[in-house]
Amino acid sequence: MKSLTRHLTFNLPERMAFENITPQVAKIVSDSGVQEGLCLVNAMHITASVFINDDEPGLHRDYKKWLEELAPFDPSPERYHHNRTGEDNADAHHKRQIMGREVVVAVTKGKLDFGPWEQIFYGEFDGRRAKRVLVKVIGE
Amino acid sequence: MKSLTRHLTFNLPERMAFENITPQVAKIVSDSGVQEGLCLVNAMHITASVFINDDEPGLHRDYKKWLEELAPFDPSPERYHHNRTGEDNADAHHKRQIMGREVVVAVTKGKLDFGPWEQIFYGEFDGRRAKRVLVKVIGE
Amino acid sequence: MKSLTRHLTFNLPERMAFENITPQVAKIVSDSGVQEGLCLVNAMHITASVFINDDEPGLHRDYKKWLEELAPFDPSPERYHHNRTGEDNADAHHKRQIMGREVVVAVTKGKLDFGPWEQIFYGEFDGRRAKRVLVKVIGE
Repeated sequence: MKSLTRHLTFNLPERMAFENITPQVAKIVSDSGVQEGLCLVNAMHITASVFINDDEPGLHRDYKKWLEELAPFDPSPERYHHNRTGEDNADAHHKRQIMGREVVVAVTKGKLDFGPWEQIFYGEFDGRRAKRVLVKVIGE
Repeated sequence: MKSLTRHLTFNLPERMAFENITPQVAKIVSDSGVQEGLCLVNAMHITASVFINDDEPGLHRDYKKWLEELAPFDPSPERYHHNRTGEDNADAHHKRQIMGREVVVAVTKGKLDFGPWEQIFYGEFDGRRAKRVLVKVIGE
Repeated sequence: MKSLTRHLTFNLPERMAFENITPQVAKIVSDSGVQEGLCLVNAMHITASVFINDDEPGLHRDYKKWLEELAPFDPSPERYHHNRTGEDNADAHHKRQIMGREVVVAVTKGKLDFGPWEQIFYGEFDGRRAKRVLVKVIGE
């Protein structure tokens, strides 16, 4: 069994943002030499997500508005008890649960086995600092 | 390491529907010859889900009502910017994030290692056209 | 390829509760002897979750309040058709979809390859009875 582990670092200038990381993940799959296997891609921080959806700016705007409605940013300790710790990012811990921590993608014939529109995104909900994504490929 | 990759195609007549695909996935696990490993099942389209829950029609009705409340169908470009592209399925991209893209199931002694009520569903949120699900089994 | 499968049993006294199961999962990874691979951790019951987030009591209180808003407990058959079956736990099937069924964690150099704050939780939404979590490690 072959395996390859790499970490990617992101430092996005906005509080909430989505970045297409498909090319970086595809490169790691290629570097691994794995022909048939699985590729795990996960946020290593608990106020961020990795998810698969469409690379369409209007949809990303819709997601941000929707996530803000489902779990509004509010630094006060009244709405979120988590913010009694001195943090202001309780909303980000909620948004991340909606969008998910990780994706597992099939590797077939040496490539990410994707449908026509699938793209992998790093989802940031408490940005403006360096945060990491883990990519691990296993197989043969 | 053994592996087997198969694609299933669904063309559901409703906009939103859930179909139990456990028998098809169990057949692929059996065909793979894998005794100990993992089985990935994922939607290849970004307006569909694969998830595990109960095969109970009342619950499925509840899910549809709930998802419609969380992300209502609205083809107009006012509510969803995504629909400015000419699409009308922005709601489906949101519903899919709630229900998830994929499941990873343990394969133990040659079978899906399931709890008493676990069943795998294809979740369609923008149906009436052919869409695919990927099943990949790896292990030994 | 090595593999190890274990089941953990939980019987939490509250209807909704979160329990940190990271030490139990880390022990199973260590027992497996796997140096490079993947670890699947999933709820075997469809009214429970396994998820990764922060071990902070204020955040857990926030999650419970938020999940109760998104999918309120209501045993009556009016709100949830599922409860026409005689069950009272339709809300738990919804809460579980938000928090997720499973996590897949990288195993690197024999350990769970975690970011600084990642901890694995069992999420119970219909407790007061014994329920199981599956842990499967594969790799080399």
